[in-house]
Amino acid sequence: MFARFLAQLDFVLTCDRLKTALRTTRLHDGSRLENSAEHSWHLALLALTLAEYAPTGTDVGRVVRLLLMHDLVEIGAGDLSFDAPAEAQAAQQEAEARAAAELFGLLPTDQAAEFLGLWQEFEARQTTEVRFARALDALQPMLLTWGPGAQGCAASHPELTHLRVLGLKEKHLREFPELWAAAQGVMAQAQARGVLQP
Amino acid sequence: MFARFLAQLDFVLTCDRLKTALRTTRLHDGSRLENSAEHSWHLALLALTLAEYAPTGTDVGRVVRLLLMHDLVEIGAGDLSFDAPAEAQAAQQEAEARAAAELFGLLPTDQAAEFLGLWQEFEARQTTEVRFARALDALQPMLLTWGPGAQGCAASHPELTHLRVLGLKEKHLREFPELWAAAQGVMAQAQARGVLQP
Repeated sequence: MFARFLAQLDFVLTCDRLKTALRTTRLHDGSRLENSAEHSWHLALLALTLAEYAPTGTDVGRVVRLLLMHDLVEIGAGDLSFDAPAEAQAAQQEAEARAAAELFGLLPTDQAAEFLGLWQEFEARQTTEVRFARALDALQPMLLTWGPGAQGCAASHPELTHLRVLGLKEKHLREFPELWAAAQGVMAQAQARGVLQP
Repeated sequence: MFARFLAQLDFVLTCDRLKTALRTTRLHDGSRLENSAEHSWHLALLALTLAEYAPTGTDVGRVVRLLLMHDLVEIGAGDLSFDAPAEAQAAQQEAEARAAAELFGLLPTDQAAEFLGLWQEFEARQTTEVRFARALDALQPMLLTWGPGAQGCAASHPELTHLRVLGLKEKHLREFPELWAAAQGVMAQAQARGVLQP
């Protein structure tokens, strides 16, 4: 086989390991922890389903590409809970930068630059596409954990009260009024159902 | 919450069940069966990585959308091995059509038509985007099972010999010369490594 395809093959087979990177969120039926590969798929599907709530002119195709790749660095660096302390988050950023260089470095040079560029765009939080992608990334675990039919996580994460979750999530969601309203609605209903403490 | 968002929420939370639809393919490290959600993510990533092997003018964004949704019907209908007998494949087609109507019917009418249209496009196998998507869908389990470092599946699937796999896969892959050459190369190397019977 030709060298270029072999490098791409090495990359896609290394990426298979994202299927064993476990997140702190459980599936909607509560049966097990979600892994980062299926989480990435779900986010991309959310982007297609909720595209109408992105600002006019948002390139939803780019949102999808960003979401398909945004967690790849967890192959080397693992996942971190969204309410981890600031020091842990700083250490995670360094680990992720190293992981990105290593993983995307498997690809042919031109493609390595392209994919690394997408990951760096995601980290820089500047473009509308990234901000919308990050809003979905903030919303999806709320839906799985506290959405209609979900069981919550009060036993394993008593610190995640209604007030605390909304406080942590608001910065990602408030820019998108419908998403923020939906998140607030889901949380209010979860509290009314007794699966979320006030 | 407004009715439109509630319908979309019902859809994305129902789609969470694709994470528990198991395929017959194991992860590349052999540790467990792959599920259809993480498979869909991996295919979308393959589409981005191997886009250069699609014919000029192929809309890779559409390939990605098709791949993110192509297996959703397994939520109602389950997965079927690629070498299942013709009768089982016909029964599966009927089950998938019912599952598609039910699942996409959860969405607001305009969006239900759009997503059902993508699924029907995938089933009709006419467009270049679908044929490329299906070629990747044929290639990915070959890479996981027999690619560099993989263990094969001779113990659980002795019927999947080099000759039989290539015979079944050729119709999906031969239209894309680089992908077909890569698939043949992977299989030849797997046979040389002793993880695939001739």
